[in-house]
Amino acid sequence: MSIENRWLLPEAVVQVLPPHARAIDLLGRAIMDLLWSWGYDAIDPPLIEYLESLLTGTGRHLDLETFKLTDQSTGRLMGVRADMTSQAARIDAQVLRGEGPRRLCYLGPVLHTRADGLSGSRCPLQVGAELFGDASTHSDLEIMSLMIETLGCAGITDLHLDLGHVGIYRALVHDAGLDGQDERRLFDLIQRKTMPELREFLDAHSMSRDLAGWLWALPDLNGPQDILPRARATLAGAGEGVERALKELGHLAACIATRYPEVTVHLDLAELRGYDYHTGMVFAAFQAGRGQDLARGGRYDHVGEVFGRARPATGFSADVHVLYDVGRTHAERSTAAIWAPAAGRDSALETAVAALRHQGERVVRALGEDHTTQPCGLQIDRHLVLRDGQWRVEAWNS
Amino acid sequence: MSIENRWLLPEAVVQVLPPHARAIDLLGRAIMDLLWSWGYDAIDPPLIEYLESLLTGTGRHLDLETFKLTDQSTGRLMGVRADMTSQAARIDAQVLRGEGPRRLCYLGPVLHTRADGLSGSRCPLQVGAELFGDASTHSDLEIMSLMIETLGCAGITDLHLDLGHVGIYRALVHDAGLDGQDERRLFDLIQRKTMPELREFLDAHSMSRDLAGWLWALPDLNGPQDILPRARATLAGAGEGVERALKELGHLAACIATRYPEVTVHLDLAELRGYDYHTGMVFAAFQAGRGQDLARGGRYDHVGEVFGRARPATGFSADVHVLYDVGRTHAERSTAAIWAPAAGRDSALETAVAALRHQGERVVRALGEDHTTQPCGLQIDRHLVLRDGQWRVEAWNS
Repeated sequence: MSIENRWLLPEAVVQVLPPHARAIDLLGRAIMDLLWSWGYDAIDPPLIEYLESLLTGTGRHLDLETFKLTDQSTGRLMGVRADMTSQAARIDAQVLRGEGPRRLCYLGPVLHTRADGLSGSRCPLQVGAELFGDASTHSDLEIMSLMIETLGCAGITDLHLDLGHVGIYRALVHDAGLDGQDERRLFDLIQRKTMPELREFLDAHSMSRDLAGWLWALPDLNGPQDILPRARATLAGAGEGVERALKELGHLAACIATRYPEVTVHLDLAELRGYDYHTGMVFAAFQAGRGQDLARGGRYDHVGEVFGRARPATGFSADVHVLYDVGRTHAERSTAAIWAPAAGRDSALETAVAALRHQGERVVRALGEDHTTQPCGLQIDRHLVLRDGQWRVEAWNS
Repeated sequence: MSIENRWLLPEAVVQVLPPHARAIDLLGRAIMDLLWSWGYDAIDPPLIEYLESLLTGTGRHLDLETFKLTDQSTGRLMGVRADMTSQAARIDAQVLRGEGPRRLCYLGPVLHTRADGLSGSRCPLQVGAELFGDASTHSDLEIMSLMIETLGCAGITDLHLDLGHVGIYRALVHDAGLDGQDERRLFDLIQRKTMPELREFLDAHSMSRDLAGWLWALPDLNGPQDILPRARATLAGAGEGVERALKELGHLAACIATRYPEVTVHLDLAELRGYDYHTGMVFAAFQAGRGQDLARGGRYDHVGEVFGRARPATGFSADVHVLYDVGRTHAERSTAAIWAPAAGRDSALETAVAALRHQGERVVRALGEDHTTQPCGLQIDRHLVLRDGQWRVEAWNS
């Protein structure tokens, strides 16, 4: 990543320097303002929590990713958050409560023990939005739209949206009656689309010919929206769960295509990312030529159950560092500044400086009589000079 | 603290909920914009670094405060930053380089193993500014002014500014020729102003009568600016270092009093906070009736030496959570929102919603035909209705 300097830093640990730190700050603000304008209330979950709190719900799979710390005052194990989704779910279920839909968003650093996330960074700056309390496709559509608009906010266009629905695989695998280990193996084969081994697996396990056919077909059912008629035909008779999932998928793909005609929608019935906790639609946004997704999300109903309250939920998240690197619209904001004499007893000068700063100008003071030692990193293009008893801004030729 | 909910969280770990998280975000933005307007460039130092990097310079004393982590890929010990000052110094010395003055600022979470910082929190949100490369009192004045303006940004007035100068004690103790253990003991007695024990200590150690008198006088030399003539008289003959320090102290106290007449300036020659790394002026801002300081800073020249480059440096930092709690100007921003029908095929509706959001309004969509299930946490005061073929905003009586 171009925004970091790795010298003496641990691998995949990011250090953001000028002018990028300011630009990333501004991008984060723009995204948080967007989420606010859609009715999402910001939360700032704790950077550290007791481990059992962090590693529940959508956080179950994060054990290896999570740095562990010992709480000196209790001896209990804490973790540094590796993801804020489960924290948001805990806050909705335990703390905020309320019956209607709840929209929450967050922006902050998370830590990963290994560099295998969205960006290859161990210190992503996570931004996300979660909608709790509504099970309808309206919520999925809102979250997917917001994900697309968030990427737009970062200046990222030319988007590919991958849509899947874990309900299809979940219904089929339930009918197959496999044990946990076999289910995990089958999941892996389908997710990786390793067809010869999938063939072997299906032949070796007793299940109806129809069911084996449906499972065999999944990895091949991907492509643009027009694969849906074929999917419906292939999976006909696979049961009510599969039918409902296909209907949701078709509806949402059509809505997104209408709303965001510039976005390429790609359906993938074998897309099972986050299968451990997702329960419905799953989606990820890509840019052509970039293997890693830029943002991802999905439905994870009932995740709050472990916190004492089952609620439907859907959400998305992304790494602002990645969005900045890919979009670069907020980059290289001008560092042009006005040079002003050192602070002293001239109150007219102080008033002029304060007024300029208030107008949004950047005013840098000399540190003494020496006006030749320029400050580092700033482009001084004007200076404040006394002309006829008035402090005026004039062009500066250093 | 009122902004947190401690349920199930480790002690002194903060979880910020609506509407406070948004308000704190806005306060952070205002402060970062202020620092930007004074020519300070934002950096975002790493949340984790190798321990030897973190615990050098101004970070020397932070060992017990710092959470330790093992880097899986190297087996080396890392720490979660407990303070960003030494990170800024490292970045100035190692990464950015350059010869002229360099102004840097930062905003981000730090972690403390114990709750004994500015706020009693283990998760402060640290904001700070550092000025490298200038040894003059101009820099000290700029940093002190910026600290006062930062507190003003948070709505905190009624400030007391404690000013000290570690150069005075440092010069005297150097002349006393004490060993490390005795020096530490003397430091402790003077800092805590425990006079009987200080008397014993001075009697038990061989030093000139004058020197013992000067050390004895320090704890008593505190009060408003007019203690300075007494300090000069008492410490007359104590040497050039003491004389210079008193002169700097007097000059800066006078400048601050002129610039910020509403701030109460208090001098304290026994104020030795951060003596381990401070080298000159030290200052802290208090509000009447609050024992803990709201912000603090000081000069720490040559801290970059350990990173390969000695540079004069001065800076301040504060915890944005504390500033928010004390100031509360950014609090309780209205959550009033406009209720709009669910997203559908009406493109005029979508255009109207997008335009309102673009104007800075908060628009919340219904999630289906049911308009009676209100979203949690939002105050809907208007809604979007179709009148004569036009989408209009009208008052909402739920």
